Amino acid sequence: MRILGIDPGYAIVGCGIVDYKNNNFKVVEHCAITTPAGMPFNRRLEVIYDELTDLIKRTQPEVISMEKLYFNSNQKTVIDVGQARGVLMLAAQKSNLEVFEYTPLQVKQSVVGYGRAEKKQIQEMTRVILKLDKIPKPDDVADALAVAICHGHSSGSLMGKLRNLK
Amino acid sequence: MRILGIDPGYAIVGCGIVDYKNNNFKVVEHCAITTPAGMPFNRRLEVIYDELTDLIKRTQPEVISMEKLYFNSNQKTVIDVGQARGVLMLAAQKSNLEVFEYTPLQVKQSVVGYGRAEKKQIQEMTRVILKLDKIPKPDDVADALAVAICHGHSSGSLMGKLRNLK
Repeated sequence: MRILGIDPGYAIVGCGIVDYKNNNFKVVEHCAITTPAGMPFNRRLEVIYDELTDLIKRTQPEVISMEKLYFNSNQKTVIDVGQARGVLMLAAQKSNLEVFEYTPLQVKQSVVGYGRAEKKQIQEMTRVILKLDKIPKPDDVADALAVAICHGHSSGSLMGKLRNLK
Repeated sequence: MRILGIDPGYAIVGCGIVDYKNNNFKVVEHCAITTPAGMPFNRRLEVIYDELTDLIKRTQPEVISMEKLYFNSNQKTVIDVGQARGVLMLAAQKSNLEVFEYTPLQVKQSVVGYGRAEKKQIQEMTRVILKLDKIPKPDDVADALAVAICHGHSSGSLMGKLRNLK
């Protein structure tokens, strides 16, 4: 299963594409969609939408995994991140891709094994699970890969549960 | 000048198109884009995007006027309204339309003349300014027409200021 993990934002959108098979992850690509602060906001939304659409077309993921946005996030930016997240969801929908959403707690539990893990630990475990030499930069890309891992694990256990039902 | 006023939302998007000429408003059309609660959220965003795009194509506004979203809005819905607002902005951008944003205070001052006006007063003044028999329903549509009036007035005064500069 090819998973595109996304860390939503308007200045930087982290993207991480991984293949998940037999409990094993392989990184296909990771990148960041960035928009400059001086660009009109509508145009930034358009760049984000167009670049995500291109990335989906080029890398052909089967599913999208995205971090949930909370009201107790940064109050100054939450509305603009929400607006950017809307166009990311629209790009997924226009590409006929289902979006699975995970809370930061779910991502931590899935990647490190417990919910109080620190950012540094999650990044290090992401690196180990994906067999990378270095932690990808910027943080948004590492976060995107972590949320992709989270979906892999949870879909694996979902399939496990389905198997046990038979 | 043809103005499309928008009251953003995800269940109901209020839309009001008015022509503004010689300090005079004429309603072209008003409508609401609605999405049902049971529909997956991504699909709701797509319906909102597609229907606004169609409305723009059909009615050919020259500019869009939209109410600003504030963090102290309804905390339960602000993120989802933000996501819907993102796709509305994208639809405007993809149609090469500039979006002007106004705070609720600016709308009140522009329509009624003072910032502490109540909802009912704004709706009644909107009805009078637009020479309508009845206040349009639902409230979202009346709000959309009010924000369209606000842009008409402020662009008028903007042009007035520019004239005075000559």
